[in-house]
Amino acid sequence: MASTIDSVVNLAKRRGLVYPCGEIYGGTRSAWDYGPLGVELKENIKRQWWRHMVTSRRDVVGLDSSVILPKRVWEVSGHVEVFTDPLVESLHTHKRYRADHLLEAYEEKHGHPPANGLADINDPETGQPGAWTEPKAFSGLLKTFLGPVDDKEGLHYLRPETAQGIFTNFKNVMTTSRQKPPFGIAQVGKSFRNEITPGNFIFRTREFEQMEMEFFVKPGEDEEWHQYWIDDRHQWYIDLGIKPENLRLYEHPQEKLSHYSKRTVDVEYAFHFNGSKWGELEGVANRTDYDLRVHSEGSGEDLSFYDQTTEERWIPYTIEPAAGLGRAMMAFLVDAYTEEEVPNAKGGTDTRTVLKLDRRLAPVKVAVLPLSKKETLTPTAEKIADQLRGFWNVDYDTSGAIGRRYRRQDEIGTPFCVTVDFDTLEDNAVTVRERDTMEQERIKIEDLHSYFAERLAGC
Amino acid sequence: MASTIDSVVNLAKRRGLVYPCGEIYGGTRSAWDYGPLGVELKENIKRQWWRHMVTSRRDVVGLDSSVILPKRVWEVSGHVEVFTDPLVESLHTHKRYRADHLLEAYEEKHGHPPANGLADINDPETGQPGAWTEPKAFSGLLKTFLGPVDDKEGLHYLRPETAQGIFTNFKNVMTTSRQKPPFGIAQVGKSFRNEITPGNFIFRTREFEQMEMEFFVKPGEDEEWHQYWIDDRHQWYIDLGIKPENLRLYEHPQEKLSHYSKRTVDVEYAFHFNGSKWGELEGVANRTDYDLRVHSEGSGEDLSFYDQTTEERWIPYTIEPAAGLGRAMMAFLVDAYTEEEVPNAKGGTDTRTVLKLDRRLAPVKVAVLPLSKKETLTPTAEKIADQLRGFWNVDYDTSGAIGRRYRRQDEIGTPFCVTVDFDTLEDNAVTVRERDTMEQERIKIEDLHSYFAERLAGC
Repeated sequence: MASTIDSVVNLAKRRGLVYPCGEIYGGTRSAWDYGPLGVELKENIKRQWWRHMVTSRRDVVGLDSSVILPKRVWEVSGHVEVFTDPLVESLHTHKRYRADHLLEAYEEKHGHPPANGLADINDPETGQPGAWTEPKAFSGLLKTFLGPVDDKEGLHYLRPETAQGIFTNFKNVMTTSRQKPPFGIAQVGKSFRNEITPGNFIFRTREFEQMEMEFFVKPGEDEEWHQYWIDDRHQWYIDLGIKPENLRLYEHPQEKLSHYSKRTVDVEYAFHFNGSKWGELEGVANRTDYDLRVHSEGSGEDLSFYDQTTEERWIPYTIEPAAGLGRAMMAFLVDAYTEEEVPNAKGGTDTRTVLKLDRRLAPVKVAVLPLSKKETLTPTAEKIADQLRGFWNVDYDTSGAIGRRYRRQDEIGTPFCVTVDFDTLEDNAVTVRERDTMEQERIKIEDLHSYFAERLAGC
Repeated sequence: MASTIDSVVNLAKRRGLVYPCGEIYGGTRSAWDYGPLGVELKENIKRQWWRHMVTSRRDVVGLDSSVILPKRVWEVSGHVEVFTDPLVESLHTHKRYRADHLLEAYEEKHGHPPANGLADINDPETGQPGAWTEPKAFSGLLKTFLGPVDDKEGLHYLRPETAQGIFTNFKNVMTTSRQKPPFGIAQVGKSFRNEITPGNFIFRTREFEQMEMEFFVKPGEDEEWHQYWIDDRHQWYIDLGIKPENLRLYEHPQEKLSHYSKRTVDVEYAFHFNGSKWGELEGVANRTDYDLRVHSEGSGEDLSFYDQTTEERWIPYTIEPAAGLGRAMMAFLVDAYTEEEVPNAKGGTDTRTVLKLDRRLAPVKVAVLPLSKKETLTPTAEKIADQLRGFWNVDYDTSGAIGRRYRRQDEIGTPFCVTVDFDTLEDNAVTVRERDTMEQERIKIEDLHSYFAERLAGC
């Protein structure tokens, strides 16, 4: 399994899903760029999340708030003070690490925490016995300066989570959308963290996209709603094709909870990283009334809710399912990646690589492949491609033997290939091949649209 | 017309399209947050752009590159040196202005430039005779620092345009997507500029979304392709409902072109700002081979193209249509905003406010309105709403007289209202009202889906 990630990274680079950011200038470890197929896959995941969380529900509305928020927001929220990671430096290599990550990796490997703390942890690079600086609190907030001078007045932070934009807009949204608790506000957008050790491909980057929803409930109803959202979010990945055995729920120990949390459960995926099997896809936290309370106090705005039916006033509790879009994409890719033996023309077998992505996620839905480059087939093939393009993302490939073109579509997860051959000119029909079964059907050109509309519903 | 913007700003705030960012902390002039209806409208504009520019074309692919790029990219592109605005300060009020904006406003008002330059321009706030500091070059780049220390090594810039992410990925994208010139790479994403004077609602903000496409062509074919994209982009706004008389093409004078441009034409909208009628929606520039050339030289990577058919090697010219998403949204809103007199029940007339948005852009497609709150209507009305929610963004409103609910949907541009009344329980049909004509039709519940599918095609 460890090599599946390597295979996926390789495929991603080779087929234009993901490139290292700024590669022609030596790259940066901080971020990745999404190529033509990557951006379609990523948008498809977003769209499924938005439909599931927002438009298909009565009780959740959307928001898109700013990346740069006034410094005061982050002072009040507690981020300026406590949004830090424990930074240590190896005295052997002078490389920097997160102390908590070193300790967790030790515990996962040995089944128990190190008896003498960091002193028991060998240098990850050289294997020498541990020699570490004292852990130092390192702020994860990225600064910038607005206005003409880089001074205190101009100091702003890039958001490390989209959530605070939701809390500061809570009252505006509740009023204008005529909602009342229980209800949620969802948003998808970029966040920025000054990670000490970015790595594991698109798993940990300094610039990343979040899909967050803050669900506001009456105090006392928070635990039940929390469980509801844990179950719902877990199921979402399964419904989009992740194998249930590759998912687990991880309960954060009480002593390690974030400063705002009463209970947090992560949905984790079995990435099988080097040194660690499980990686967090999303955290589902009970943030209590912490955020709305501190922002009420900090801003002077009353962010409580007056319930007219019970004549009670209370500050809502917040349940937060917060997912990473890049992490979700990586899990969908790793889970879909398959190598299988298939019979070849010579009576032996070939290995074919298939991304068995859910059709709703596949970056290309249909590939149109004229059997030969002969001009007689071109007008018909191009016309079919152009017509389907109005509805779905369509690829058109004329290059190489047909078997090779099928393989090329298989490895990017295209659910359907349409082959235009010389019979097409006679019978006005084409061969449609399905990705997973490799079964082929002869379909009339005039029926193609409804054939795909049925099979690609919900895309 | 000047007051249309005020009406739109007011509507946007009141109905949850757009809020000032960080309002509970006194707000910031830098950015705006998009509420539940605003985020849907904005996504719909993006989707139409993406369909038009990417998925419906054979020759354009998508990309999503990082916001934070290495400093070197911006040094090579010329931004560190020349991406500046001329900052002046009024000696009367000590407020800061962009000298070029002051000069342009004078020229638009008087029909000629000021004879003595800034000295002829009165203080915009006090009206006193002009007294200004010497213009100073003010960098529009926003800094941030990655890594543990705020030093030269950690200095990075937030992108002021998405374009450079496209140029640095040019070779990766061309290779993996098997394209060759003429072809384009498109992307939608946030950019950041340290504007001296943010203002005019969402027209000029420090944080904004761009929809950019770089179209790479053979040198010599650049002028023809440039004209093609000017015409195409102008028509796009008209096809989505903007009145042609409110658009114009503005040719940049040669002496004012950006450092990379051979010719630039803006698509402008008649916003009727205070002091200036026209505002830029997007610029369509012929960037020549400037960007690929400087990045070839700066990175040492060969970004030229070898044309096998003619055995020639050349650096492609780039045609760039670069649109502002917030500006497009503002133009669609202002253009759609209508107040009209309609007959009321008392034999007189009422004023109704209608957003006559193209159906593809409307944030809510269908509103389901049970005629009374009586429980007998609720199950049917909710069932209809839930079924339609699987396909479109649906509102459900039970509050107030039916006429008032129609008005509420009119002013957010909802194309269709479905009224569930007591007859519905007998005839299994509902009344569908169309926004612009206000005509009503009785439609069987079982036919509702296909009724809307036909009228909301392409949404």
